Amino acid sequence: MSKIFVFGHKSPDTDAITSAVSFSYLQNKLGLDTKPVALGSITDETAFALDYFNVAHPEVVSTVSDQVEQVMLVDHNEAQQSADDIDKVEVLSVVDHHRIANFQTANPLYYRAEPVGCTNTIIFKLFKEKSIEIPKDIAGIMLSAIISDTLLLKSPTCTEEDIAAAEALADIAGVNMGTYGIDLLKAGTKTTDKSEQELLDADAKTFPMGDKKVRVGQVNVVDVDEILERKSALLEAMKIQSDAEGYDLFLLLVTNVLENDSTAILYGPYEKEVCEALDTTIEDSVLFLKGIVSRKKQVVPQLTVKFS
Amino acid sequence: MSKIFVFGHKSPDTDAITSAVSFSYLQNKLGLDTKPVALGSITDETAFALDYFNVAHPEVVSTVSDQVEQVMLVDHNEAQQSADDIDKVEVLSVVDHHRIANFQTANPLYYRAEPVGCTNTIIFKLFKEKSIEIPKDIAGIMLSAIISDTLLLKSPTCTEEDIAAAEALADIAGVNMGTYGIDLLKAGTKTTDKSEQELLDADAKTFPMGDKKVRVGQVNVVDVDEILERKSALLEAMKIQSDAEGYDLFLLLVTNVLENDSTAILYGPYEKEVCEALDTTIEDSVLFLKGIVSRKKQVVPQLTVKFS
Repeated sequence: MSKIFVFGHKSPDTDAITSAVSFSYLQNKLGLDTKPVALGSITDETAFALDYFNVAHPEVVSTVSDQVEQVMLVDHNEAQQSADDIDKVEVLSVVDHHRIANFQTANPLYYRAEPVGCTNTIIFKLFKEKSIEIPKDIAGIMLSAIISDTLLLKSPTCTEEDIAAAEALADIAGVNMGTYGIDLLKAGTKTTDKSEQELLDADAKTFPMGDKKVRVGQVNVVDVDEILERKSALLEAMKIQSDAEGYDLFLLLVTNVLENDSTAILYGPYEKEVCEALDTTIEDSVLFLKGIVSRKKQVVPQLTVKFS
Repeated sequence: MSKIFVFGHKSPDTDAITSAVSFSYLQNKLGLDTKPVALGSITDETAFALDYFNVAHPEVVSTVSDQVEQVMLVDHNEAQQSADDIDKVEVLSVVDHHRIANFQTANPLYYRAEPVGCTNTIIFKLFKEKSIEIPKDIAGIMLSAIISDTLLLKSPTCTEEDIAAAEALADIAGVNMGTYGIDLLKAGTKTTDKSEQELLDADAKTFPMGDKKVRVGQVNVVDVDEILERKSALLEAMKIQSDAEGYDLFLLLVTNVLENDSTAILYGPYEKEVCEALDTTIEDSVLFLKGIVSRKKQVVPQLTVKFS
């Protein structure tokens, strides 16, 4: 049994899964006994990346304290995005690129956050700082995460450091970033074979904002209408989830990864506030968000300010 | 006016003050416009270090949002240890070596925490990572912080990295670490010229633990009896502070920096719990804590577990 689990957030995206794999690889090279696990099933996009580079899919777990006493978090820190029993284990380290909230430890720890586009960009720097070589397969999945998080370096979250890391990783992985990147993003946009529940859960996070509990999901598409045709069924599923989980607001971002715009479906009583926060209008529960692709940078802070 | 303030915790010790100076120096070399400030008056020990190396004493402030919109925190993260109006400014970055708690941001930030003995050890690594040369005076005050935090490398919080940093900094500063270190520690142990209030406030922090608010102060001495002779007056001052601030428990650690043991004076109704947590006995409000010199590693986690 491995002594330390490494994992990203619930409803894992490609960065959450691959940063667990790459950071665990680094830690093991440094002499620790760690194992990457996943807090949810792997998306089509992530599966495409792992399979392309022949990397094993991490085991899916929902609790961890039954198997380990110590963990390392990647790509998240907030308790509600982590393992259900995160309060029962010791967090040894965190590598993340998100805001810090609802995170608390009894002991000093290793925490490395940087305001870059992708956790794997930070892990790339850690490999360099520790002078550990990145193997071809690990470089490939790290590159995939940067492409995924920055929509092929086009998101406003993308920094110079993400670009430099992606270019170096593409070299090591031996792929053409543009060609591989579009294949990867398209692999994550199949929606017709998914239930409403699956679309809502695929990449969704819960954020406390003031006294409100806000759920923001995101789904990447190449054809927005594929989703809008299912609006009624999606709203019904959002209502069921909101009632069950106590969300005050549920926003589903539908991001066109080729156009770099989003459309959003809103469930909840705060239409006016959301429109003000995101500087747009709403019609029949649908908002158009021109130029908005980043939940973290272009949606969550604006809603947080509005509701806090 | 500088655009960004850099500061350590309230009741600043040598690491809190000097890490603000050294991190501000580094950030300015990297092109930012920052200024170190202090959230409280400077101790005798810190003044000894600053004056020895001819470094200006940072300006003391209690609020920051009247002067700046953005800040960088060093040597702390918890809101109750920070500026009174910390919620009114944006925290751009944190460099720290403590637990993380009561810390929250709306935006991603740069956060660098490592479980080492001193914030300046992390800043030493940052200088190296950025390939910025450390000038003699900055090296001297950084070394002083490591000596202060690790009691001349003898505290259980001291790591290999602290030792390596201290040796490199002593070289740059051109001092003999042992000789200078004892002079520095002794400079911080004058207690006879201080009021009870000053002794309690000199290096004290408040920790929420479960539903309790716990105050832990620390004073370094070479003669413990100097403090114990004033026990009644100290307990009276602890009562007044506890009543005013709502502390459920007030512990004053009196650490003999030459012997590396502590004695503690306890005010509050939880004698049994504190003795269990710290594995000792109490007599007339006084506990002997053999081998205990580190509040962070040997006192706060143990009390946190007991009261949570």
